[in-house]
Amino acid sequence: MSKWYIEKGEQGDIVLSTRIRLARNIEEYPFPSKLDIEGRRKVSKTVHDAVAGSSIGRDFSYIEMTSLPRSQALSMAERHLISPEFACSGEGSALLLANDESVSIMLCEEDHIRLQVMKAGLALHEAFDTADRIDTMLDNSLHYAFNERIGYLTQCPTNLGTAMRASVMLHLPALTKTGRLSALAATISKLGLTIRGAYGEGSGSKGDIYQLSNQITLGITEQAALDNLSAITLQIVTHERAVAAELIKIPSEEDKIFRAYGILKSARLMSNDEFMELASLVRMGAARGILDIPIEKVNELIVTVQPATINAAQGKSLEPQARDQIRAQSVREVFNNV
Amino acid sequence: MSKWYIEKGEQGDIVLSTRIRLARNIEEYPFPSKLDIEGRRKVSKTVHDAVAGSSIGRDFSYIEMTSLPRSQALSMAERHLISPEFACSGEGSALLLANDESVSIMLCEEDHIRLQVMKAGLALHEAFDTADRIDTMLDNSLHYAFNERIGYLTQCPTNLGTAMRASVMLHLPALTKTGRLSALAATISKLGLTIRGAYGEGSGSKGDIYQLSNQITLGITEQAALDNLSAITLQIVTHERAVAAELIKIPSEEDKIFRAYGILKSARLMSNDEFMELASLVRMGAARGILDIPIEKVNELIVTVQPATINAAQGKSLEPQARDQIRAQSVREVFNNV
Repeated sequence: MSKWYIEKGEQGDIVLSTRIRLARNIEEYPFPSKLDIEGRRKVSKTVHDAVAGSSIGRDFSYIEMTSLPRSQALSMAERHLISPEFACSGEGSALLLANDESVSIMLCEEDHIRLQVMKAGLALHEAFDTADRIDTMLDNSLHYAFNERIGYLTQCPTNLGTAMRASVMLHLPALTKTGRLSALAATISKLGLTIRGAYGEGSGSKGDIYQLSNQITLGITEQAALDNLSAITLQIVTHERAVAAELIKIPSEEDKIFRAYGILKSARLMSNDEFMELASLVRMGAARGILDIPIEKVNELIVTVQPATINAAQGKSLEPQARDQIRAQSVREVFNNV
Repeated sequence: MSKWYIEKGEQGDIVLSTRIRLARNIEEYPFPSKLDIEGRRKVSKTVHDAVAGSSIGRDFSYIEMTSLPRSQALSMAERHLISPEFACSGEGSALLLANDESVSIMLCEEDHIRLQVMKAGLALHEAFDTADRIDTMLDNSLHYAFNERIGYLTQCPTNLGTAMRASVMLHLPALTKTGRLSALAATISKLGLTIRGAYGEGSGSKGDIYQLSNQITLGITEQAALDNLSAITLQIVTHERAVAAELIKIPSEEDKIFRAYGILKSARLMSNDEFMELASLVRMGAARGILDIPIEKVNELIVTVQPATINAAQGKSLEPQARDQIRAQSVREVFNNV
């Protein structure tokens, strides 16, 4: 089945994907950090039974995290299907994963239930509708910890209320290269949103890809939060497009794009950092129409040539140079066949 | 008419070309530096008449150096058809140039006559035979300054004797990159030869291309000098091939070759220094069979995208960025059509 991240969605030249994450807990059980292995197993089984017995049961696989090879777990984290912490979680934690990987439900992560829906492009309301439908269905068979005044109860108080984190993944090469992103980030935080690098720990912005998400979950409805995030996303998209259109008119910047494409089509060894840097240039070239490449091909490579995902595909943990060789080969194959 | 430098000759993977240069002076006149404009004109006309009246007269154009646009004169120097000093020479100096540019006769350079024959690949004896035939023909109608004991008289005493400078242009990327060339250069000088960078002043070895030439002209016959140079050239060629074969087995070195090719096929702006660096890698890849490119295409580009040659082709002196754009375009056109 085709994976959601291969598609190009709304505003797909800049918005790679949309994610909605709902945190839920079951009233009868303490939060996962207060549960022993047996308790976590019970919670995971309870949710699994609720999903399996529902109309969507057949679309999901149930995966006990300890049964998952490490490279596969890390690959899922790279693809943002699970959190990096959850990739290393122990006995009792489990994952319900939709076959097309568009829905994942982490069981006994920070909360009992972390329901996550992903869609290509800008699709906040569509993704929320899907999440809401699954959430309503689970609500019918589980007793959620809920308080009339403060909404859904979550382990971390920053999630109280809607317990919804909505985010979009944005490719902002022009705003990054012209240094305008830092000013933008300051404005964004005043609007109740936060922006951070979507790839790599700390380094911030590998591939000029960022995650923009809502921060406020208390005293606001889901719809209002989505409307706010959607409107600001569209403003950033317009801004990026305008700056990029100017940037590619500069001969030396245009040259960088074509060179990046030339290197991607020919290199025999490529580190992930270099790939992300070159892929960003090529993606901007494709998005602005100076390179005739389907943007989905770039999106797909950004997902498939990450280190753990290469290891997972090869079924073993490779030495960096062997991985750099496989990465270069995958990249060549894709770009020499478009 | 196809130019000699487009061909691939003997040992053509490493030997780009062979050059024989004979210095001659006419007995009745002082050396050019002692001549006024009128005297230089007379000498040039005398030699011109001798060539025009001979069987090869039709193959040559007679060019007064002051009538030549500066960009064309500099382009000829880049193509090693004339010396850089001669490109800037004044009234009275002239050039006899064969239509295929394989023979050039500088008139009133340092000596009255500097007869130069170039051939593709390693062809020392063939090039000398051609030079010798033209020299014999001129000798029939001119009175050369010649002394039984010290041979041909030349302005600079280092040329006395045979007054022959024989040289081969060698592409030695592997010996350069592995640092073995400096040791080799020391050995070479003990054998009466000298090696120096063929492109660029001072910088030494743009594109890893070197000129290897004989130093000794006194007390040695032309044939002995040619045999010596030929034998040492073959030894260097064998050495370069062996080191290159090892070098390209290293994945990171192989990667550099493919990247260089990728950049050459895609860049929109390219300086001459960068071109020479990348062309050297690609030429090594073509020479060692890992890139499927006719080596003549690389040879031709090395000649045609030099700065003054681009200016000459455009008929004007361009700004560096405009030239970098034309260079990148020429390079792309050649490599995307092989």
